[in-house]
Amino acid sequence: MDQKVVNNSESRSERYKKGEALLNKIHGAHTGEAIVSALNDICPDLAGMTIEWGFGEIVSRSGIDLRTRQLVTVASCVTLGHAQPQLRAHIEGALNVGATKEEIVEVILQVALYAGFAAATNAMLLAKEVFASYSAPNH
Amino acid sequence: MDQKVVNNSESRSERYKKGEALLNKIHGAHTGEAIVSALNDICPDLAGMTIEWGFGEIVSRSGIDLRTRQLVTVASCVTLGHAQPQLRAHIEGALNVGATKEEIVEVILQVALYAGFAAATNAMLLAKEVFASYSAPNH
Amino acid sequence: MDQKVVNNSESRSERYKKGEALLNKIHGAHTGEAIVSALNDICPDLAGMTIEWGFGEIVSRSGIDLRTRQLVTVASCVTLGHAQPQLRAHIEGALNVGATKEEIVEVILQVALYAGFAAATNAMLLAKEVFASYSAPNH
Amino acid sequence: MDQKVVNNSESRSERYKKGEALLNKIHGAHTGEAIVSALNDICPDLAGMTIEWGFGEIVSRSGIDLRTRQLVTVASCVTLGHAQPQLRAHIEGALNVGATKEEIVEVILQVALYAGFAAATNAMLLAKEVFASYSAPNH
Amino acid sequence: MDQKVVNNSESRSERYKKGEALLNKIHGAHTGEAIVSALNDICPDLAGMTIEWGFGEIVSRSGIDLRTRQLVTVASCVTLGHAQPQLRAHIEGALNVGATKEEIVEVILQVALYAGFAAATNAMLLAKEVFASYSAPNH
Amino acid sequence: MDQKVVNNSESRSERYKKGEALLNKIHGAHTGEAIVSALNDICPDLAGMTIEWGFGEIVSRSGIDLRTRQLVTVASCVTLGHAQPQLRAHIEGALNVGATKEEIVEVILQVALYAGFAAATNAMLLAKEVFASYSAPNH
Repeated sequence: MDQKVVNNSESRSERYKKGEALLNKIHGAHTGEAIVSALNDICPDLAGMTIEWGFGEIVSRSGIDLRTRQLVTVASCVTLGHAQPQLRAHIEGALNVGATKEEIVEVILQVALYAGFAAATNAMLLAKEVFASYSAPNH
Repeated sequence: MDQKVVNNSESRSERYKKGEALLNKIHGAHTGEAIVSALNDICPDLAGMTIEWGFGEIVSRSGIDLRTRQLVTVASCVTLGHAQPQLRAHIEGALNVGATKEEIVEVILQVALYAGFAAATNAMLLAKEVFASYSAPNH
Repeated sequence: MDQKVVNNSESRSERYKKGEALLNKIHGAHTGEAIVSALNDICPDLAGMTIEWGFGEIVSRSGIDLRTRQLVTVASCVTLGHAQPQLRAHIEGALNVGATKEEIVEVILQVALYAGFAAATNAMLLAKEVFASYSAPNH
Repeated sequence: MDQKVVNNSESRSERYKKGEALLNKIHGAHTGEAIVSALNDICPDLAGMTIEWGFGEIVSRSGIDLRTRQLVTVASCVTLGHAQPQLRAHIEGALNVGATKEEIVEVILQVALYAGFAAATNAMLLAKEVFASYSAPNH
Repeated sequence: MDQKVVNNSESRSERYKKGEALLNKIHGAHTGEAIVSALNDICPDLAGMTIEWGFGEIVSRSGIDLRTRQLVTVASCVTLGHAQPQLRAHIEGALNVGATKEEIVEVILQVALYAGFAAATNAMLLAKEVFASYSAPNH
Repeated sequence: MDQKVVNNSESRSERYKKGEALLNKIHGAHTGEAIVSALNDICPDLAGMTIEWGFGEIVSRSGIDLRTRQLVTVASCVTLGHAQPQLRAHIEGALNVGATKEEIVEVILQVALYAGFAAATNAMLLAKEVFASYSAPNH
């Protein structure tokens, strides 16, 4: 099998650093440290994978801009229904990378047709909470 | 209770016509007729609601452009896992309103982190089928 | 395409009023106002759609009586697993339109076979809470 | 712990026979045999549990009538989205115990608000197939 | 139809006692009483079915050992996403029957690929809570 | 933030090779090539991530043996309900790494309590198909 793989020229630590920087850009300064700290006693590798894989390899890809990427992530979390902490984080992240409150509201309303109005209403009330306490991070 | 409601100045038939036109713009001419026809013997009102509500009231809203709206709908259908006919239709719809194949691929890959790699892989193989047979509709 | 649509002879405001009255009948006086109020700062149109579409067009249909309609809604919310606020509201709503506690318990137990015993047990314990604090609304 | 349990006065074989008779009443003669036969080479105990527990202990309970029980089961299967064989079987079962086609259509439409319009549309098209080929069983 | 059924030679009360003993072995002494007590006012038969069917017939089967059985149950609850009380109980149960913390962490990480990283991260943080307060039960 | 990450001493290509070897061990020779080939025209990076991340980093971990890892993966796929291709592949994979048919049957039956009997029955019938056509791969 041919071994062409994703971003193959980068070393792991380069991707980890890129992932960490992107995570902090989207979710606010020090969020990477908070994830590492929360998972440190139980599974530090899950934090490492989230940062290196999730952010360093997937979120950092080109093809769609960060704002669109956050909006589709919000759509996925609304649809899951049970991923409230992630939904909260990604609504904030969407705002942090330039999505407007109106755009987030529209995404939740659009998803109502597929995920149902219960999931959408719960997501909308969570967005209301996030919007009320939101202040843009200092990068 | 105050009775300000959505698009209140429009009559139902205006919204139905707007929904039908938008449905045909996104999904190709005659798709609206196909939906009405498929549901005609069992629940024509479901077709009516899809066109008048779904397309005439939600999809027709401003706030996010049609391309973004289709991409978040793709994200929601990937996440559901079981909505293959709708996923197919919305991948086509995304292409019809100007999303690129690369954008659709990126949405599916991003959603893999939240919906799992099984749902994402199945969606990617479905997208491959859609891309292979796709030809842009004549509006 | 033929434009026969649902309840086409009614104006929007007639359907909104019908939906609001039905919502208050099922969920108790002032619930409509509470929904409008909760969503007012974030997406008042979602409240409008819930009342006008959800209640004015779907819940108000004939074909099954309100008691059966509430019981199937309870079944759907139990199955979703994550829609606890809606499950609570619809258990109360079922009682308000004449379902007995025994009927609600039977619905949850029946659904256990399809949604699993975890979802059913969590739903049953929520029903227990609702039953304990329930008092029939004054219409 | 007190050992009052469900239907404790019945022996297992009494409950199995009761379950089998009820399964055949709801799903048509020979369906019980078909389930036993299909699972015979892989896990006959799953067939036994379905008949003895599912039908002999849960479906056979009083509290809601069989028609309502089938309708809430349809609601649960629509909501799951992936349980198409069971959805088909329970739409037929609903018809067999006296539910009308209109009632089944109303249940699917009601559930659309909670399970989404994708799941509801797929269920409606499956119901259309079932209705087209349906003939009432000879008991 | 042949009436060979599961464990047919046992009386119901034998299976109930076997289920209760197994439940207490996995989840710690008095857990069976707690389940019976919690469901007593709403649906005691659900407690009875959980103990007699769930534990007395399924969990008590041979074929996989109790440790493996608990680990696959953890995997299922992580995947559901909304079954947090059951996930907590089965992480404790896994520890009680000899699974190590490392094994539970590995199961959650493995499931991340199928259930998504949101569900896995929420499960990992719940496991961290359980591990922090865990003390082995006295049997 | 400290940059301790997973398997940090390995280069990417080492992990890719390890992942590919493990994938072929679990799923039979040439499966890795089949995944690469199927995704080649649409998103080769998804194949790369599956092999390098999924197999090279997660499945290759110690902590639980491969047989247990396959069984918990089967449990997760049964619970998802819509991941039939992956369920098929992981039932085969479980057999390939030494799980018995009995163990797989027990996992599906155990999961029935959490994922529901519809998902379990559909999974059991799929397992029956896999068992019927199964022949152990030549490594």
